[in-house]
Amino acid sequence: MAFTLGIDFGTNSARALVVRSSDGAELGSRVAQYRSGRQGVLLDSRDAHLARQYPGDYLAALEESVRGALAAARRTRGFSARLVAGVGVDTTGSSPIPVDRRNRPLALHRKWRRNLDAQCWLWKDHTSWREAALITQEAARMRPAYIAKCGNRYSSEWFWSKIWRCLTAAPAVFKAAHSWVELADWIPSVLAGVTDPGKVVRGICAAGHKALYSDEWGGLPDKRFLSALDPRLAALRDRLYARAFDATTPAGSLCADWAARLGLPAGIPVAIGEFDVHYGSIGCGIRVGTLVKVIGTSTCDCALVPPGRVPDIPGICGIVPGSIVPGFQAIEAGQSAVGDIFNWWIDTVCGGDPEMHARLTAEAAHQEPGQSGLVALDWQNGNRSILVDPRLTGLLVGCTLQTTRAEIYRALIEATAFGARMIIERIRDYGVPIRRIVCAGGISEKNPLLMQIYADVTGCTMHVAGSNQACALGAAIGAAVLAGAHRDFPSAQSAMTRVKKAAYRPDARRRRTYNRLYAQYRALHDGFGGVRRRTDLSNVMKELLSIQADSRAA
Amino acid sequence: MAFTLGIDFGTNSARALVVRSSDGAELGSRVAQYRSGRQGVLLDSRDAHLARQYPGDYLAALEESVRGALAAARRTRGFSARLVAGVGVDTTGSSPIPVDRRNRPLALHRKWRRNLDAQCWLWKDHTSWREAALITQEAARMRPAYIAKCGNRYSSEWFWSKIWRCLTAAPAVFKAAHSWVELADWIPSVLAGVTDPGKVVRGICAAGHKALYSDEWGGLPDKRFLSALDPRLAALRDRLYARAFDATTPAGSLCADWAARLGLPAGIPVAIGEFDVHYGSIGCGIRVGTLVKVIGTSTCDCALVPPGRVPDIPGICGIVPGSIVPGFQAIEAGQSAVGDIFNWWIDTVCGGDPEMHARLTAEAAHQEPGQSGLVALDWQNGNRSILVDPRLTGLLVGCTLQTTRAEIYRALIEATAFGARMIIERIRDYGVPIRRIVCAGGISEKNPLLMQIYADVTGCTMHVAGSNQACALGAAIGAAVLAGAHRDFPSAQSAMTRVKKAAYRPDARRRRTYNRLYAQYRALHDGFGGVRRRTDLSNVMKELLSIQADSRAA
Repeated sequence: MAFTLGIDFGTNSARALVVRSSDGAELGSRVAQYRSGRQGVLLDSRDAHLARQYPGDYLAALEESVRGALAAARRTRGFSARLVAGVGVDTTGSSPIPVDRRNRPLALHRKWRRNLDAQCWLWKDHTSWREAALITQEAARMRPAYIAKCGNRYSSEWFWSKIWRCLTAAPAVFKAAHSWVELADWIPSVLAGVTDPGKVVRGICAAGHKALYSDEWGGLPDKRFLSALDPRLAALRDRLYARAFDATTPAGSLCADWAARLGLPAGIPVAIGEFDVHYGSIGCGIRVGTLVKVIGTSTCDCALVPPGRVPDIPGICGIVPGSIVPGFQAIEAGQSAVGDIFNWWIDTVCGGDPEMHARLTAEAAHQEPGQSGLVALDWQNGNRSILVDPRLTGLLVGCTLQTTRAEIYRALIEATAFGARMIIERIRDYGVPIRRIVCAGGISEKNPLLMQIYADVTGCTMHVAGSNQACALGAAIGAAVLAGAHRDFPSAQSAMTRVKKAAYRPDARRRRTYNRLYAQYRALHDGFGGVRRRTDLSNVMKELLSIQADSRAA
Repeated sequence: MAFTLGIDFGTNSARALVVRSSDGAELGSRVAQYRSGRQGVLLDSRDAHLARQYPGDYLAALEESVRGALAAARRTRGFSARLVAGVGVDTTGSSPIPVDRRNRPLALHRKWRRNLDAQCWLWKDHTSWREAALITQEAARMRPAYIAKCGNRYSSEWFWSKIWRCLTAAPAVFKAAHSWVELADWIPSVLAGVTDPGKVVRGICAAGHKALYSDEWGGLPDKRFLSALDPRLAALRDRLYARAFDATTPAGSLCADWAARLGLPAGIPVAIGEFDVHYGSIGCGIRVGTLVKVIGTSTCDCALVPPGRVPDIPGICGIVPGSIVPGFQAIEAGQSAVGDIFNWWIDTVCGGDPEMHARLTAEAAHQEPGQSGLVALDWQNGNRSILVDPRLTGLLVGCTLQTTRAEIYRALIEATAFGARMIIERIRDYGVPIRRIVCAGGISEKNPLLMQIYADVTGCTMHVAGSNQACALGAAIGAAVLAGAHRDFPSAQSAMTRVKKAAYRPDARRRRTYNRLYAQYRALHDGFGGVRRRTDLSNVMKELLSIQADSRAA
């Protein structure tokens, strides 16, 4: 009997999960919060775009979560930490960390400890929006192929934007950094005891989706392109990496030091790092025709296509071979804020306690679609897909003197559902089939109202992943394949994943009303999110009032 | 020494004020709340457009407020109720009441007591939006002159829309009503003991601004026009009135019954009824070149022009000769919700206690213009001027995950300031001078932050009326002129009104930022409030973020 361990580094905490390789049974798990900043995120009150993390928090959470999960698993007969045959890691991203020559994050040095620019640049940091726009511009001019596969827009959430921003805003940090390592690569390299950034095994997932890496053009962007941005970026290229790998290649084997710290056998394989939703998609049983939605503070959408069949899809962030399941191309899209929007509404605007989520949800559940007369845009943190523009903001239209906060709460949920529908329609428009949707993430577990609204808005049945720890499960599956417990990923997924029996099915009547509201959402989406585009929005408020009247009359 | 009494019937309460005729000194006042409904307003949870009032509440408040004001005045040496030489009344409007043959509101009969359609149809009732649109349409076709002076749009807040709506929605009420009397005419008629609707002296103010009355076409709309709406409206015309009068004509003299109930001398003149802001403008010392803004739950704007010089101004609700000061034409405009918007935000959305106004105001006062990145449209209750469209709703754009409720509160204040600027610019564009702004109403007294924002947004100094009971004062001035205490209105105003010493002056730096924000407000205003109009709004969010960045950098 063999077991593997999956460790999921989320935005606010890390979670370790012990899994039985034969059937995916989950034996024990443990969550460890990051200790610094606000819920683990370092903020700057002068710049709302900034979001960083202290790398030391990851190490503390790694130890706490793994030891806790092993302790929990020990309650199961037949389990022993000695039987753990591999470890897999997934993280947020793009979250690059400036490191020294020994692969040690600058922030772990006393000198840089308090410097925000020397920390991990968290995925949701948008300080580099100017740099992202310039990269898009230069690529369009010099290397259009570079961005064709990421929706023709390079994002401020990504690797090169962030590093270039650091160079501009904090040149001393840039200079002190020998290299930069994605969090998804860095944690496995720590477990494998790698003390040279040049020897860190880099995953195709972070490289391909965020760093413009592709075998098509020989790896990372060439020096001529990087020099056009800044010659110092071209010089950095030599200190990054030449190749990136899919999950058939391990990141290394567990070093003695960390084996001792975690209480695991030394030498077992450490799977290559992937982003949370990518291993999460594996944990949801992704295959061709499936869309996996990981719905949390933000949402990520993943789909697979056999090699050679993927068109470039405008506005979809990434299409990378092998970045989820080896042998398949992966499409990734997403919404920059989902749960974050609901939290913002309740915490920052309504000043509510944690129980207010339940109260407003209960109230909103009694409302019919269209009854509030509201429609919102879900861009409080910009728009990742399909506009790929962080310089967009939230919008709410239709308020009257009777509008309640529960109505606005529901309108915000609906806005994220409309955003989800935009993505589904864009992917389908380019010939990629979506026949089945599997949702994971905290919200898909805890918010049946949202799930039903998503089904009604999209017209698709929403399945829920069998595991509520799909990301960690996927990482554990990656380790199980490496450890030889299964022949390949598809067979490992068949054995180790499932969906819940109960699913959310669309209701035809509610869907008709949502089709009318969606038309208004699209008008606003195109009107505010387009480029120098004139739109007729003069009937939006009246149409919302008509939908409201029809909804109340029904 | 002579005194007069002004009585102001507001949306939630009535206020009586005892004034010395020689110098406008205020000797005593008393507020009486209406007892029914929510803060005096009868609502219908199934229809947010509905707002009615129980006429019995007016009579109770009349007695309570007048007796209270007289009791308070008695503390001043030399005052005696026997020296009160006249009474003036102002009310909200258009607030028509269905009455029987004896001038008694239907709702005072047991049979109709609980029927919402038999009550007073309060000014802010918008149930008749369909009828208003049809009247606009028919007038444009048959009698364009009818609506040329009210901005080419007949409103759902007005007399004929409401009566026609009653005919359609509650034909039994319409049939039972012998006539309809505006609240502004009805209260004076009660004081004068008039028991025949045909003998109620009707004011030009309600008639000219709300009922399409004009000497140009021989009074009320002709029967052919009314028949085109509904023959039963044409039949009603005979039971309404043939002439309406300005404030040189009294409504009657105080009848013995009410003299006894109030403790006043019988036979003293009762001034003609005017709307609150019209008498309020008199109480603010209105003259040619002055804009009076009465800022409360909604805002009314009034200006005067010498006869014969007023062009038709698109989107301005009314231009009526003699409706404020006899001998001058009056221009009236307004914003359908101002204080109501702030109350909605705090009560209904934030769930705050009354002290939250002060807390959010204090927080908002520390913000610089543009700092929040927000801009809002102030249409939560539709738009009275200059779009004259109740089928518009509120809009908020620019929210991020950091947006606070105090920032939104300030954005709502700013939205009403932008709405105020639209009106000022429209009036000036048509050659009517505005050289001086005098503000009255609770908000102008209590909210220095709002007043400063209004000054900064409009670029005009905001004066505050010397009396915080300007409407009641104006009604008392009307009574004083009738009682012979002054030669005419201008000389009565000179003697009896003043502005406060401290005024709010625009700041040049803040004004520059507000000019940038106003450009965005205008783009949204024209984009959402226009008719089949295509607008480029694709840069709104980015421009707001740029304004925000500049504001934070300054």
